[in-house]
Amino acid sequence: MIKRLVVIGVGLIGGSLARALREAGAAEEIIGCGRSRENLEKALELGVIDGYSQDIAEAVEGADMIFLATPLGAMKDAFSAMRGHLAPQAVITDGGSCKGSVVADAKAVFGQMPPMLVPGHPIAGKEKNGVEASSVALYRNRRVILTPVEETDLQPTARVRRMWEACGAEVSEMSVEHHDEVLAATSHLPHMLAFGLVDTLARMEGKDEIFRYAAGGFRDFTRIASSNPVMWRDICVANGPALSKMLAAFAEEMNDLAQTIAKGDGEHLLEVFARAKAARDRFVDGLDNDSTT
Amino acid sequence: MIKRLVVIGVGLIGGSLARALREAGAAEEIIGCGRSRENLEKALELGVIDGYSQDIAEAVEGADMIFLATPLGAMKDAFSAMRGHLAPQAVITDGGSCKGSVVADAKAVFGQMPPMLVPGHPIAGKEKNGVEASSVALYRNRRVILTPVEETDLQPTARVRRMWEACGAEVSEMSVEHHDEVLAATSHLPHMLAFGLVDTLARMEGKDEIFRYAAGGFRDFTRIASSNPVMWRDICVANGPALSKMLAAFAEEMNDLAQTIAKGDGEHLLEVFARAKAARDRFVDGLDNDSTT
Repeated sequence: MIKRLVVIGVGLIGGSLARALREAGAAEEIIGCGRSRENLEKALELGVIDGYSQDIAEAVEGADMIFLATPLGAMKDAFSAMRGHLAPQAVITDGGSCKGSVVADAKAVFGQMPPMLVPGHPIAGKEKNGVEASSVALYRNRRVILTPVEETDLQPTARVRRMWEACGAEVSEMSVEHHDEVLAATSHLPHMLAFGLVDTLARMEGKDEIFRYAAGGFRDFTRIASSNPVMWRDICVANGPALSKMLAAFAEEMNDLAQTIAKGDGEHLLEVFARAKAARDRFVDGLDNDSTT
Repeated sequence: MIKRLVVIGVGLIGGSLARALREAGAAEEIIGCGRSRENLEKALELGVIDGYSQDIAEAVEGADMIFLATPLGAMKDAFSAMRGHLAPQAVITDGGSCKGSVVADAKAVFGQMPPMLVPGHPIAGKEKNGVEASSVALYRNRRVILTPVEETDLQPTARVRRMWEACGAEVSEMSVEHHDEVLAATSHLPHMLAFGLVDTLARMEGKDEIFRYAAGGFRDFTRIASSNPVMWRDICVANGPALSKMLAAFAEEMNDLAQTIAKGDGEHLLEVFARAKAARDRFVDGLDNDSTT
């Protein structure tokens, strides 16, 4: 049981954790913290939090669990603000899409990796932002990755794991580097393609007509291009090295496809498309099986 | 009113046209044609067609409207098979995703562009194939593009337009070249990105784990990679020139993004992502307005 949970950044991710823990009876008191008073008032009104402070140092006072749900670019300042104000029992975790930068920020602020800081990442989200979009079910049957490092103590990791399990999530652990590579492949690269595609079309002559003739497939394909630009700028900057590697691998694939199309080599195209379809169909089968168990 | 409609290729696209015209009372008799007897029997059983022949020359006998819904790679053989068997009142149209190759195939077979051939393209579909997936509503409120050429007579174009309007579609006309460019941008390029992304991941070490950590956004983004590989091979071969141009434009965008990420230039990233998000949100607003009117 968490006695005093502090959620820094009460939006979709932070708000959904608060809602899920409250519903599970796993948090006694939930305190919000953030820059927008209007948003915090809204969260209070919705019953997502029990109180708030706009000052991180004040908010973390006496907290035994602190969840950082800010964009990656705001993590370092948040660490700085809470330094020296943490209770002895405090555990810190976060929801950032890149773990290497969070570890680096923590080391820069605290001088070393604090043993009660457990970097984490819930693999869940939608394009809608804000506390109004948060939901008690966002993490149910979703995966959460924890990336404790050598310096991380066992007990904080176990507490963060129990917190996510109380939300209905399935928790696993991997190294920081591996997490950042996997996410570059499955999330960061696809977002680059969606942003890049829409921007390519938006810059074309006659773009209004082009979008007019786009069909439903295009809508699905580009949904993630409606994601929060600030959040994605931060992810790109934070996960630059792993993402650059994925972009290079994808560029190679596209060069190969472009040459194959230019040559009109139908046999090779069929091979690529059939392999991709098989992999994608297997992936969906996996998801469907996951959600029924 | 169509007296005798022949649908060559009774799958999702052909079957949905047959269903919609029957429901609208716009076709007296509907004859199917295709290579798979099993599929044609299924279509008969479902009431999508009234009869069938596996022989194109026989099927088109006495038809006043012929709809070609075969993959683009089968168009030329279909034209050859119907040559010399067409009734004087016959109008031919098709549903291919590329119009330049259809015109070229027709010219190659008939010696010149037949005046009663109206190239067309309904902008609708789903990943599921086959007559079982066909639906009376597939074309309702969807766009259909006709690309009559200089040689095309006015009356056949008007008849094809009325046919699609009877299905509830909104019909517009553009040049063959323009159609192929617009579709390369809005449909063919996105399919290449989805196939290419899934294939890149499928070829990576540890691919099973990578797909395991993919979230809902990835599912939406890659849905079109589950499309029919043969159909897409044909589209790539048919629309090679326009698609190659789009691939080059996209490669430039991605090179720019990759360099920006490598430099850690957050300002430029934010600009690209914000522009893309704005364009995508406008596009969705447009779609929503369309579907409510």
